[in-house]
Amino acid sequence: MTAPFIFQGKMGPHLKKLAIGIDIGGTKISLVLGTDKGKILARREILTRTGNGTRACVKELIANLRALILRSGISPKKILGIGVGCPGAVNSKKGTLPRSPNLPGWAGVPLRRFLQTATGLPVFLANDANAAALGEQQFGLGKGCENLIYMTVSTGVGGGLIVKGQLLEGAGSVAGEIGHISIVPEGKKCACGKRGCLEAYASGTAIAGFYREKSCKKVRGAKEVGIAAREGDKFAIESYQKAGYYLGIGLANLLNILNPEKVVIGGGVLKSAPKIFWKTMITSTRQHAWSEAFSTTRIVPSKLKGQVGALGTLALVFNNSRP
Amino acid sequence: MTAPFIFQGKMGPHLKKLAIGIDIGGTKISLVLGTDKGKILARREILTRTGNGTRACVKELIANLRALILRSGISPKKILGIGVGCPGAVNSKKGTLPRSPNLPGWAGVPLRRFLQTATGLPVFLANDANAAALGEQQFGLGKGCENLIYMTVSTGVGGGLIVKGQLLEGAGSVAGEIGHISIVPEGKKCACGKRGCLEAYASGTAIAGFYREKSCKKVRGAKEVGIAAREGDKFAIESYQKAGYYLGIGLANLLNILNPEKVVIGGGVLKSAPKIFWKTMITSTRQHAWSEAFSTTRIVPSKLKGQVGALGTLALVFNNSRP
Repeated sequence: MTAPFIFQGKMGPHLKKLAIGIDIGGTKISLVLGTDKGKILARREILTRTGNGTRACVKELIANLRALILRSGISPKKILGIGVGCPGAVNSKKGTLPRSPNLPGWAGVPLRRFLQTATGLPVFLANDANAAALGEQQFGLGKGCENLIYMTVSTGVGGGLIVKGQLLEGAGSVAGEIGHISIVPEGKKCACGKRGCLEAYASGTAIAGFYREKSCKKVRGAKEVGIAAREGDKFAIESYQKAGYYLGIGLANLLNILNPEKVVIGGGVLKSAPKIFWKTMITSTRQHAWSEAFSTTRIVPSKLKGQVGALGTLALVFNNSRP
Repeated sequence: MTAPFIFQGKMGPHLKKLAIGIDIGGTKISLVLGTDKGKILARREILTRTGNGTRACVKELIANLRALILRSGISPKKILGIGVGCPGAVNSKKGTLPRSPNLPGWAGVPLRRFLQTATGLPVFLANDANAAALGEQQFGLGKGCENLIYMTVSTGVGGGLIVKGQLLEGAGSVAGEIGHISIVPEGKKCACGKRGCLEAYASGTAIAGFYREKSCKKVRGAKEVGIAAREGDKFAIESYQKAGYYLGIGLANLLNILNPEKVVIGGGVLKSAPKIFWKTMITSTRQHAWSEAFSTTRIVPSKLKGQVGALGTLALVFNNSRP
């Protein structure tokens, strides 16, 4: 039921503060054991089963969790807690999983209670992008920032806000829904059902859509458009410019509203995008933002790369366990 | 140099916590003396002189300030401090007035130093809409709210944000610039020089502009359009509907980003607007916001009316003087 973990660091009494992070995604669930310095010591992935498979998946998760603690040889006393990140409007006080189109069958599962009972450790739940924002604040380029926005551009567009040093969840736990701010009245239809959302104009899905419209070629996602762009495909470059322009409008709105010290941008799209994407985005942000807001906020690409999800879940624990 | 003050309440030893508020506007400067319950005891207005008249205006302000304290018969020891609200990107730490198109000649005036030297009292500066947000939180419908947005719709559109119980000023002191979020890419030209700002579509100026375009009649401002609308003028009603629709987009974006407990809306436009304006705004907000964000945030019209500016400056003092 459990497979060997990949242990990447030395275990032992020198490790003082440890946490476990669980990142629940639509296709896989990642488990990590890491330190308060952001060092990941062990990692393991299981497949996310949805619908009727949820129950078995929770069992498998708990078995792997117990094995992770046992095989690390570390006293459970040294583990401060478990951080769980997942998509949707997570109510961190309730401790149950929210309704999310990516996780059918998981809505209402009292995961916090299950994990606490199984391990005796405190469990902290958050939206995955919110956790990532905490990860950037504790381990990434957002270090020391009082006010920080983390924005992720991948299949969709999401984000998390750190305001006055703390995560902002909002009255209905949906603060930071950056992808669904309206930027074009009565514009393109978004996956959420509304029209004109930022996500419909600036996500990986949108970039692929722009390219399909312009070139009449079939592509599966933004990654392929990125390859075409780097090969000099005019339509591919234009698709990225278009998305960058709209992303800049969304960013400018965030700057005008929140005027944070920093915006850190992560997500898969940046990895495969040509340089013109970032350049167009910044130009458009400057064009649409107050000059005072633009000049006082730094916009930087994340350096945590693929680790941001895992580090975010660890940050959740350390953030909640501060003395 | 100073004129009699209007004393509205009983002075005496029963008053425990008092503050002075100074609201600097483009045409007049209001001085008030009030209690921590939001009761205004004395009020006085002087004209705002700009350009070369700034120096004389500061002198007059100080003379009136001294007279206010003296004539109230209250020991200066009972006055906790002076709150100053003015337009522009106020840096509350610096204590100088910011550059603002409405206050030429005032940029860089070290008002805090002047007032502190003249009175010996602590002085707190803030942007006027930010101060108003504090006023709503302490004395208005935002009482007890941890996360609150105050939005003012008048000649322009402005706002202030209370996040985690505190005013959010931002890295460059321009957080809450709600009027200048972009809602129509390459849209109408705004007074700020950019295009497509919320203010260009949902302010009193915008409403009057829509009406002029539709009816080819001359009107000076939204107030006249409001009268026409109540008399059944089709074009006037349509102008308000259009503005309400766009205001709803702006509101929805705020809800999706911040998901506050409450949004309080004030400003002159609401006073003269027909009911259809509010109704269209709410319908458009529902249409453009996440359902979770819309259902958990209450949107209400301010009840502080014309007092919000004065109460905001008082709130600045009490907020900064908490034990």
